Amino acid sequence: MSETAGNFFEDFSLGQVIRHATPRTLSEGERALYTALYGPRFAVQSSDAFARGLGYPAAPLDDLIVFHTVLGKTVPDISRNAIANLGYAEGRFLKPVYPGTSLTATSEVIGLKPTSNRKAGIVWVRTRGYDEEGDCVLEYARWVMVARKIPLPEDAPLEEATVPTLAEAVSPEGLGAGLPEDFDLSAWDDALSGSARRWEDYEVGECIDHVDGMTVQEAEHMMATRLWQNTARVHFDALLQKDSRFGRPLVYGGHVISIARALSFNGLANAFHIAAINGGVHAAPVFAGDTIYAWSEIIDKAQLPERNDVGALRIITWAVKNRTAADFPGHAQEGKDYEDGVVLKFDYWALMPRRG
Amino acid sequence: MSETAGNFFEDFSLGQVIRHATPRTLSEGERALYTALYGPRFAVQSSDAFARGLGYPAAPLDDLIVFHTVLGKTVPDISRNAIANLGYAEGRFLKPVYPGTSLTATSEVIGLKPTSNRKAGIVWVRTRGYDEEGDCVLEYARWVMVARKIPLPEDAPLEEATVPTLAEAVSPEGLGAGLPEDFDLSAWDDALSGSARRWEDYEVGECIDHVDGMTVQEAEHMMATRLWQNTARVHFDALLQKDSRFGRPLVYGGHVISIARALSFNGLANAFHIAAINGGVHAAPVFAGDTIYAWSEIIDKAQLPERNDVGALRIITWAVKNRTAADFPGHAQEGKDYEDGVVLKFDYWALMPRRG
Amino acid sequence: MSETAGNFFEDFSLGQVIRHATPRTLSEGERALYTALYGPRFAVQSSDAFARGLGYPAAPLDDLIVFHTVLGKTVPDISRNAIANLGYAEGRFLKPVYPGTSLTATSEVIGLKPTSNRKAGIVWVRTRGYDEEGDCVLEYARWVMVARKIPLPEDAPLEEATVPTLAEAVSPEGLGAGLPEDFDLSAWDDALSGSARRWEDYEVGECIDHVDGMTVQEAEHMMATRLWQNTARVHFDALLQKDSRFGRPLVYGGHVISIARALSFNGLANAFHIAAINGGVHAAPVFAGDTIYAWSEIIDKAQLPERNDVGALRIITWAVKNRTAADFPGHAQEGKDYEDGVVLKFDYWALMPRRG
Repeated sequence: MSETAGNFFEDFSLGQVIRHATPRTLSEGERALYTALYGPRFAVQSSDAFARGLGYPAAPLDDLIVFHTVLGKTVPDISRNAIANLGYAEGRFLKPVYPGTSLTATSEVIGLKPTSNRKAGIVWVRTRGYDEEGDCVLEYARWVMVARKIPLPEDAPLEEATVPTLAEAVSPEGLGAGLPEDFDLSAWDDALSGSARRWEDYEVGECIDHVDGMTVQEAEHMMATRLWQNTARVHFDALLQKDSRFGRPLVYGGHVISIARALSFNGLANAFHIAAINGGVHAAPVFAGDTIYAWSEIIDKAQLPERNDVGALRIITWAVKNRTAADFPGHAQEGKDYEDGVVLKFDYWALMPRRG
Repeated sequence: MSETAGNFFEDFSLGQVIRHATPRTLSEGERALYTALYGPRFAVQSSDAFARGLGYPAAPLDDLIVFHTVLGKTVPDISRNAIANLGYAEGRFLKPVYPGTSLTATSEVIGLKPTSNRKAGIVWVRTRGYDEEGDCVLEYARWVMVARKIPLPEDAPLEEATVPTLAEAVSPEGLGAGLPEDFDLSAWDDALSGSARRWEDYEVGECIDHVDGMTVQEAEHMMATRLWQNTARVHFDALLQKDSRFGRPLVYGGHVISIARALSFNGLANAFHIAAINGGVHAAPVFAGDTIYAWSEIIDKAQLPERNDVGALRIITWAVKNRTAADFPGHAQEGKDYEDGVVLKFDYWALMPRRG
Repeated sequence: MSETAGNFFEDFSLGQVIRHATPRTLSEGERALYTALYGPRFAVQSSDAFARGLGYPAAPLDDLIVFHTVLGKTVPDISRNAIANLGYAEGRFLKPVYPGTSLTATSEVIGLKPTSNRKAGIVWVRTRGYDEEGDCVLEYARWVMVARKIPLPEDAPLEEATVPTLAEAVSPEGLGAGLPEDFDLSAWDDALSGSARRWEDYEVGECIDHVDGMTVQEAEHMMATRLWQNTARVHFDALLQKDSRFGRPLVYGGHVISIARALSFNGLANAFHIAAINGGVHAAPVFAGDTIYAWSEIIDKAQLPERNDVGALRIITWAVKNRTAADFPGHAQEGKDYEDGVVLKFDYWALMPRRG
């Protein structure tokens, strides 16, 4: 059944819109599990009382819960036969998602490019998550290299390539979309949020070591990945993976993003909302037993249109494995892309309270 | 204290009704954990919005959540001193269970048969789970071999045996009991449910490989089994198990049923409700580290009385370990009951939308 | 940033009140995870229906959920630089906490005593957890040995010591504070609660073996500890711990308390509420792979003022590792404090129904 086999490169067509199974209601249960899996401490997502003081009807779910849920839905259709996850861009969190919200997801094929070895191709999609009112809560572009079911014959011409133009970073203008309409910063309490550092206190170029480390357990990343109904076999099937080049289950890249974001509380406690994802690279695989550390660099700062209560920081959070991040490992100087141990480069806009 | 020691074979009497501790309220928390443990993708149980469209007041909890919860309650009274779990029959899911429902359980002893070695006996019970309105939500028969506290003296006569007559399969007539009263199939969306295959599209004798595999982790099966307040020591106590014939903790058989059911989404995505359990055999033990695959055979098809919106499929789902299921391993040809690697034979009726 | 580094001994001052990050709303999600992690079977915390019969508006959250949540909040401020957790005293559960409650926590420094080696000092705090109405739901005293950032110079005088006087046990008078106002015992059902033994049936000096054992898994204690947003690095960072004297991650002491309490259902099924914590000692470290057993001794019995429905038992629950508890291992006879394998001595008041 093609339903189970997933799509191969030749199954995609430009402009095609795929409605994904399985619809999903998120609840306090997902919030509790997310806390158990990553230990996030951002006050807005942790406490209904804190969130209500700011004008939210309740604590919104962590932005990455929404991201993982939407991405998980796309896996059977988009990346079941993926060879590599190549990148993300133009991610926007457009509406807060609260427990009780039912989500669905679609992906539109926005680019296709066959590889010259005739065995695969790159597929670009724009994925959108919708709540039950039909509002788009999240959108992002993603591109993956997908295998062909049947290699293209040598005598057949390569299909024409369409490569979409994607922004290097999301424009700051719409970054406030994920805030409640009547957001009121006056109730912000630095003691409860865990830091007195606000938007004004960060400088472009500043590097922050998040200090703590977290050792990934096999049961944890598997539970996390299943929680998002992500079915990619490489994460769950140790027997299959024994014969792969890794020899063991691969940790879902999003698991590392969530660990790094949770660790980033040490130094970025007031970065209370991921407003946009500019890009993400999984620089090396992560396995159970690896210990993850993280550090961040402030890349840019932006004011939001017509607001002086909240500002945006563009942050690159780097995750490394089996070494600490105190010396800020990132791009390599020569010969390779990244320094040893680097596993993630995650580029995003976070919102942070201003001094008002 | 007998409360802790559990019942031995000589403690049971025919017709005895045991009210089990501990009452339990199920919530969205259990749903989220079930998703994290097994990764089910059936739309009805996943999304309140999808379920509401069909006439449910909310997404019902997975049928197996109800099964595990009710069975877990019986363990301290029925199977604490069990030597073997021998079978299930006549399982019926009679009413949907939603988050917020408080359950209790009772078991009636419907059969007793001493073993000829005078050290044990078989106990048949009919177990029922009730919601707080007193409605029976689930009933099933189960039989286990239970140790005697004191072997029956050689000069004492064996007790008379009473073996209940249990149906080979549940009659299709009542299989619609677990549907909401105003069930309306018109809102069924094949794209969201994950498959366009409906009841008419399956044939008796058809075999379906569920393709994916899942490697069991020690922490996962322990968390799962505790989630059902199932206290059977063989699952949790590695020290005790070191001296057993297995040498290590045994995975709760129900954990394997849930893995197999979740895997069966690949090919049976629209089998949205387990209406009845005809039988179940745990053919071999499962341990942490084993990778589970599954396949299913369509055994029978039935229309439901006075409905043309939903039909029933009788399915046997087989689970195997440490080998794929593409060659449909099941009963052995000769010399033994099951082919190598077979761990579960689970015989049930599932409901599936018809073309209407 | 001092926010990340935590406080050192020289950062504390007598009378100082620290308001802790991160506020937290507890939900059914935390309840479900607590059940999955420990398998508790106490009926009041398990079933809304059972609890409502007694006059609770819903099943209250397990007392230890509240304890762990509040203690977790104090870690970044109080014990990030702790060398040893020395004790607890005067713990009182003052108000039931239900799903949906948002908690915050504060700690007041009530004692300080520099160690003679000039590298550390003992810090006593009284920690209080508050709900969003501002009511104190839990308070306890705790003392920890905290490192100095800079050793006190040899020529500087040691700071004056202030050692608070803490009660050897909480007075029984206020132990009913955690009951609902209109508590009505008439609905108590011994079959559902799991035991017919009530307050009158226990004798001071009685020892109870809780029989079952539970083997700790790495993923479980890590998930549990993160669930309480407890960030102590020794629990999560296997790389850091490799160079410690333990060589591997240390299990959070509270994890062992919760395991022991859950095991104590075997024999203390009707001890439905921890009303007070008199003291607690973590006698030896616990690691993943250790199997925990427990036993309890009834130390004292007390009537509650003006009530004959519920009485209090003072209980010491002992946990041991990698040996059973049938021979009641506790204090050692000579040469050392505790018998081999003892990991926890937990002294508390529990409430239990009386015959009325």
